[in-house]
Amino acid sequence: MSVERPLRIAVVGAGEASEAEYAAARALGAALAAAGAVVVCGGRGGVMEGAARGAAEAGGLTVGILPGADAREANAWISVALPTGMGEARNALVVRAAEAVVAVGGEWGTLSEIALARKMGVPVATLGAAPVPGLDLPELADPRAAAAWALGRASEGRKART
Amino acid sequence: MSVERPLRIAVVGAGEASEAEYAAARALGAALAAAGAVVVCGGRGGVMEGAARGAAEAGGLTVGILPGADAREANAWISVALPTGMGEARNALVVRAAEAVVAVGGEWGTLSEIALARKMGVPVATLGAAPVPGLDLPELADPRAAAAWALGRASEGRKART
Amino acid sequence: MSVERPLRIAVVGAGEASEAEYAAARALGAALAAAGAVVVCGGRGGVMEGAARGAAEAGGLTVGILPGADAREANAWISVALPTGMGEARNALVVRAAEAVVAVGGEWGTLSEIALARKMGVPVATLGAAPVPGLDLPELADPRAAAAWALGRASEGRKART
Amino acid sequence: MSVERPLRIAVVGAGEASEAEYAAARALGAALAAAGAVVVCGGRGGVMEGAARGAAEAGGLTVGILPGADAREANAWISVALPTGMGEARNALVVRAAEAVVAVGGEWGTLSEIALARKMGVPVATLGAAPVPGLDLPELADPRAAAAWALGRASEGRKART
Repeated sequence: MSVERPLRIAVVGAGEASEAEYAAARALGAALAAAGAVVVCGGRGGVMEGAARGAAEAGGLTVGILPGADAREANAWISVALPTGMGEARNALVVRAAEAVVAVGGEWGTLSEIALARKMGVPVATLGAAPVPGLDLPELADPRAAAAWALGRASEGRKART
Repeated sequence: MSVERPLRIAVVGAGEASEAEYAAARALGAALAAAGAVVVCGGRGGVMEGAARGAAEAGGLTVGILPGADAREANAWISVALPTGMGEARNALVVRAAEAVVAVGGEWGTLSEIALARKMGVPVATLGAAPVPGLDLPELADPRAAAAWALGRASEGRKART
Repeated sequence: MSVERPLRIAVVGAGEASEAEYAAARALGAALAAAGAVVVCGGRGGVMEGAARGAAEAGGLTVGILPGADAREANAWISVALPTGMGEARNALVVRAAEAVVAVGGEWGTLSEIALARKMGVPVATLGAAPVPGLDLPELADPRAAAAWALGRASEGRKART
Repeated sequence: MSVERPLRIAVVGAGEASEAEYAAARALGAALAAAGAVVVCGGRGGVMEGAARGAAEAGGLTVGILPGADAREANAWISVALPTGMGEARNALVVRAAEAVVAVGGEWGTLSEIALARKMGVPVATLGAAPVPGLDLPELADPRAAAAWALGRASEGRKART
């Protein structure tokens, strides 16, 4: 016997998002949750909030791995708020916790998560343009495609490790 | 609008537990889950497995914050497996993630979690005897009492911070 | 060719020390430095400052692994101040960095370091009484004995791993 | 009274370096050490070894913040080997420990360190081309210029914080 272990997909991006980025992250979160995945993120605002909101609205589980030591810094759509007290070093934890990562917009923090994902071997793509040009990453056109890509890569990874 | 954020209670203890410790952890996990709490643990065997199993059997959510980088090291009752790749340093994360901590049996690793909880100001008690004598900690008599204590302290903490 | 790699001994203890504890830590730091060891500590006040001061006064190198993100929180006797921004989770780093650990006084934070050392297999003893009774640890009578013990265990460990 | 606290400069780059990168890192390490700075790095091979070697040959102090739990993974030119057992999450520690960062070559791991430095507000530049184009970073022409830049930025930062 055992419990079901849903796929874990991280959505990363800037803490201050444009309306379009927020909407894209929300649609992505919704699509991931609709497929039964857990949405993991950094737990704060902007893209993190958009993704968590979309997932929560679709009935999904949302996990926020927070930089600070206080769960109250989580946005209102995080169900499982995990304060780390580790500051930016928590970026490595967000990525390590995930079976695939999708970046939406973002700047240096997001770039660090993309780079750590590549270094750790966690599949990573961007929804829309990457934070900087010249990265050799899949750029997915819309939230639905991004969700499908992430779910596919996470599933494959789990099968390959079985 | 927002999502519900259940109380997070950590159950810590040895990776190799006696039958009595395993049973106690399982009953504790069940009582916590029955009250709607998320059970957080280190994700491995022994007490961690007992607590996760009890919680999962009661329909609760179980989060395992793992020392290694591979989610497959989680026990079969962990629903959200979070590999950290941080080794023993993840003990600080288990404690930091929780609003109250209950230790069941255990040795040095468990003692480190008890001490970190006290240092961080996270309420901590033991179910049965502490790993070493002389600690100034509540020692709770049975799983039901331990669950009530943890839920009570976690609720109070959340109210005090509001 | 290569560079010399001195033994690394951690001195841990409370951030607020009694005069006797401060003096003991200072004498310990001096004895370690006189033997050519690097003194590693948490970089703050109290016992950490005493140990760093004694080592620095004896011409030794002092490394402070700080909880915060700002090197200015280091005491005045730390030569290499390493901010981590990881809060209490840095306790695991202090211990992991060392080849032997000596605790002087202290409370919960120190107890966490003792427990982590035991869990990680890093030799650990106390100078004087342990933070709580009942720990199965060497209790060394004076700074000179503590330095000899730590240097001996660290040397043996290094040889055993060669 | 207090001890001198030398500037801490991190040199980051790939664990497998070209001959040109190794030579550049070595010259950079030598220039930093000649100015009295401590060279901080990830402690492994390639650029990390080049920088440590150059610094050690110039009589400087070298600190290696290692991903694994075993100090023996440090290269032969690391004087203070600090195992972390934190895997790639140690990249954040290398950057946080430094007052300025210079990247030499490198790929995803190095890119994560550059991005973390920018996110944390630690001055960062590259010696030669950045791992990816399009980053808004100083690109320094040679080791001497890179050392001067890093020492200058680190000094300014320390003054600004006084």
